[in-house]
Parts: sequence; C-alpha cells; structure tokens
Amino acid sequence: MANLKNKLSDFSEEELISFLSEGMLSSSDILRGIGEDCAVIENSSPDLLLYKTDCIVEGIHYCLKDSPVLVGRKAIARVLSDFAAMGGNLKHILLTIGINQKTSPSWLKEFYDGVRVILKENGANLVGGETISLPSQAPFFCAVNGIGVVEKEMVIFRNQAKVGDELWITGKLGGSLASGRHLTFNPRCREARWLKKNFPIQAMMDISDGLAKDLPRFAQQNHCGYQCFLDSLPLNEGITIKQGLSDGEDYELLFALAPEKSSEMLSQWHQFFELELTHIGCFCEKEESIPFSFSGFDHLQNFKDV
Amino acid sequence: MANLKNKLSDFSEEELISFLSEGMLSSSDILRGIGEDCAVIENSSPDLLLYKTDCIVEGIHYCLKDSPVLVGRKAIARVLSDFAAMGGNLKHILLTIGINQKTSPSWLKEFYDGVRVILKENGANLVGGETISLPSQAPFFCAVNGIGVVEKEMVIFRNQAKVGDELWITGKLGGSLASGRHLTFNPRCREARWLKKNFPIQAMMDISDGLAKDLPRFAQQNHCGYQCFLDSLPLNEGITIKQGLSDGEDYELLFALAPEKSSEMLSQWHQFFELELTHIGCFCEKEESIPFSFSGFDHLQNFKDV
Repeated sequence: MANLKNKLSDFSEEELISFLSEGMLSSSDILRGIGEDCAVIENSSPDLLLYKTDCIVEGIHYCLKDSPVLVGRKAIARVLSDFAAMGGNLKHILLTIGINQKTSPSWLKEFYDGVRVILKENGANLVGGETISLPSQAPFFCAVNGIGVVEKEMVIFRNQAKVGDELWITGKLGGSLASGRHLTFNPRCREARWLKKNFPIQAMMDISDGLAKDLPRFAQQNHCGYQCFLDSLPLNEGITIKQGLSDGEDYELLFALAPEKSSEMLSQWHQFFELELTHIGCFCEKEESIPFSFSGFDHLQNFKDV
Repeated sequence: MANLKNKLSDFSEEELISFLSEGMLSSSDILRGIGEDCAVIENSSPDLLLYKTDCIVEGIHYCLKDSPVLVGRKAIARVLSDFAAMGGNLKHILLTIGINQKTSPSWLKEFYDGVRVILKENGANLVGGETISLPSQAPFFCAVNGIGVVEKEMVIFRNQAKVGDELWITGKLGGSLASGRHLTFNPRCREARWLKKNFPIQAMMDISDGLAKDLPRFAQQNHCGYQCFLDSLPLNEGITIKQGLSDGEDYELLFALAPEKSSEMLSQWHQFFELELTHIGCFCEKEESIPFSFSGFDHLQNFKDV
C-alpha cells in the first residue's frame, strides 16, 4: 500500500518511519529502538564506547543525479571510516533527515535501501531517528549518529606517535569526487583492525579532507613536524600530486608506526590484502618539518568570497 | 583574539571549534572528545545506555529574533526531556550544526553559551560534533545527539501500561510557542526520576507534538484505547481546550499509573513539587475509546497544500 503513495504528505510520520525502516536488522541488546523517546541498549561489556556524528548535504556531498542508494551508502560509509580509524566497530545508528516538499518517497526509500545494505554488511542496526520538514529551498540533509565499541587493547588514538615514526597510507589518493569513488569507497574497517592487532600502531586517522589538510593536523596532534615524500604518493590514474593531496574524500587510513616494524608489516600485509599500503613520510622534529605549500579542503572557506 | 573575528570565513575549522567549545565541562570517563575521529568513553557500569537524536531548524523551532542563548538552551532541553521520559540522565552530546554565510560568529557563540549552561546544570558534556557549510538560502540547523544512562530498575518504557491505568500529566498545556515558553521550559528530569523511584509508573512519554497527537500514539503503543477528561485539562492562561491539545511544544510528562496508587502519589508529590500534576484520563478497552476529533502537529502535513 505504502508504495502507492508518491508524495511525502500522503504519509503520516508513523507511516513514513515504518515505510523507511522496513527490513532493518535488529539485535538482542536493543531493548527499545524506533518509537521510544530514546533508544535503550543493554551493555555489559567492558569495551570502550565510541560516538561519532557526521552529516551529508545535497549539493555538497552528493548531487541530485547520484543514485540515492549510493548516497545512503555513503552517509553510513563515512561514519564506518571514522570507526575504522579508532580500531572499532559500528554497532548502532540514529538517523536525522531533513526533507523538503521536493523529496520524493521513492528517492527516500532508495536512500534507506542503501543505508540498510551497508549497515547489514557491517552488522549494525538503525535504532532511531528524527524527521524534519525543511522549507523547499533548503537542501536535503542526513545526520548520522554512530554508536560503536572497541576493546580497550584495540583502540587507536590519533596522538600517541613520536618523532621518527613512519607515516603510512592505505589505498590511492585523488579524484574521488570526479570519478564517483566518493560514493562507492570501502571503509577500511578490516584493515585497521588487522593492523592494530598485529602491529603497534601509534596513531591513526581517516583522511577525508585531503592529506594536505589532514597530515598537518595529524602532526600537530602528535606535537611533531612532518615530511611527506611527494614522489612516493600513491595516486589514482591521471591525478597530479596537488590533486592527490587536496581533492579530499579519499577515506583512506593514515597511520604512524615505528620504523623497525615496517618491513614485517608490509610483507604480512600483502598476504592478506590486495590494497596498496605506502610509506609516504615521517614525523620529525618541528624545526625539520617541510610543510605543504597549499592546503586541503576547509569547510568554512567556501564562505571566503562573500 | 577570536572575538575580533566577525565573519565565519575569518576562522579555520579548528579555530571555530575551539572558539565555540571553550569552557565546556569534561569528565574523567571521556578518554577522547573533540578532535578525534570518534569520541571515546569508558563505561564500566551495568546501566542501560540511552540514545536520542533531535534537531532544531531556524524558522521551525525558533525565529531569528529569538535570543541565541535560549535557542541553544532549547536544542538541549528538548533532548533532556526525552531522557527524562525514560527515567534516565543525559551524560554526553555530539552537536552537528549546519551554518550558512549569514550565520554570525557572535550569534553562534551565544548559541553555544546557551548549550554550555544547560549542559553544566545537568552534568553533561559536549564530546564532539560536525560543522556543515550550507548554501545561503538554507536555514541554520542543529542536530543534537544525546547519550545517556539509566539504571535497569529505573528505566521507564512507553508501553508497559494496561487497561484501567490512570493517565497523568505534569504542568500545564498550550500556548508554548506564542508565549515563548518553548524556549524556557524546564525538562522534567527530577520529576520523572522521583515518580519512578517512588511509584510503579507503567509507561511514560514526553509530549512535544500536543496531547491530541501524542495520547493516541501512547494508547496505540500500549494496545489500549483512551479517554481524556477534557474539562480537567490543566491549561495555561487564555488557552482553549483545542489549543491545549494541539499547540504542542509543551515538553511535559504523560504517564500511566495503576489507580490504587494515585492518591498516595498526589499527596507525596505536593510535598516535593509546586508543579501541577493532573489526572487527565485513563486507558480503556479499544472499543470504549473516545478519540479526539482533531489531531496535533504532524511534521509532514505542512507539505499538504503543495
């Protein structure tokens, strides 16, 4: 019946929620989910809790011509990438969506299909959310609130590295938006946990704003300078060094490891993963730092010319 | 120095985050907060975890002429009200804000001041967030992701009531938007926990969409019908019964209690609280239900005429 409705105003809130959340996975630790004032979750493990909020907006993180299934997938994949960088696993999400009168129920349904599939692949559940009706000129947005866990011995912070540590990166850089990879990338969940389990990873982050923005930030958080081997950067085909550093939306892992561990890591890595793993630089004393001459994406700088 | 900046584009993301989050409370269970890929929180208690996401949007939940301090307060108070209705306490929040080029740093600073004060009053912390730059025609929004706890014996679900239970409501109804009370209301955190601690409360919710919307929903979740004593409704001054039922934004507690407990509850209540507590109806068999002839606020229905 719900499928016969083709305008959002044909739905009551309850109908829309049940239309969209149909088929979402559940698990026994979720005592209450959608329909309560709060989601209620049983937690008896000593694991650390992880929380992350992230948001995608029409016209910024995707275009109207993009597949809604892939847009929904991307909304969750971005958050998975953050949980990966902590060494943890996503368990539950809450979704806030801002819709307007142009949002069609079928677009929204496909968006939720994308959400559902990637949640299922990662054993995570939708436990609640919020729907906001926006004025018609406002773009669609979706805020994803991720709830996860990580064993105490597996957590990877951003700031436990030291001068002399090598910098490594997974995958290749650049051209993510132009190629559409920003909609189909694989968050490096398995890779991050394998790395932490087998090697003393000192610090890790996911790079989403471009290495030119994220590496200086990473160095600063570790109270180090940095040197980046520009001629060693793993670049996607047809991508210049500058694009590779500043395009952003790569969602690869950047991490620091003591140099004496790296050859063993690299040889073991290639037994498990086909993905590239590249030594791209090192942390050094601040006075030896060789800063990039340009920076990556800064969310506030698109207001610069106003 | 930060105070000399009067456009958002004068800030880098890092500067804006530190400008806004200055003076926020922290606590020892927060291993990592702002600046990590995820917030990391230690949790060794057997308490249940509570999660809620909520969102306020300019032009819907507040107007530009409203005090930004009160708007920030409201964003958090709405979430506190949901945690109250579960019998729990808010512990941490993540804030996602969608800003545009018209958003001034000083407005935003005052908004965060409002957030900070009410979080502090309630012993809760800001542990992370996200900033999104919106096109200039998009309204400001703030999604609040609340993380909380409740002892297993204190949790109050929405749906454990039965036919014959009395329905009670705290405070008075109606005129919240017109009077400005929607910006200054007190979430009923203390009242909810006192009730649950001392009486076998069967089901509870906070009413935010108006009793005409929320009571039928509450009855349905309890598989009951309902009768509402329209002449007993606690109304704010100058408010008609219809306004009291459908204005919404009251953020009072609606709960169900076995009739044999109510006189004791009422007499003890008045030793602790000045707030009104009113018997407004009962749960009954579905065939004895006396439905309202009109409904409260439905978020999707403002698209109706399009």
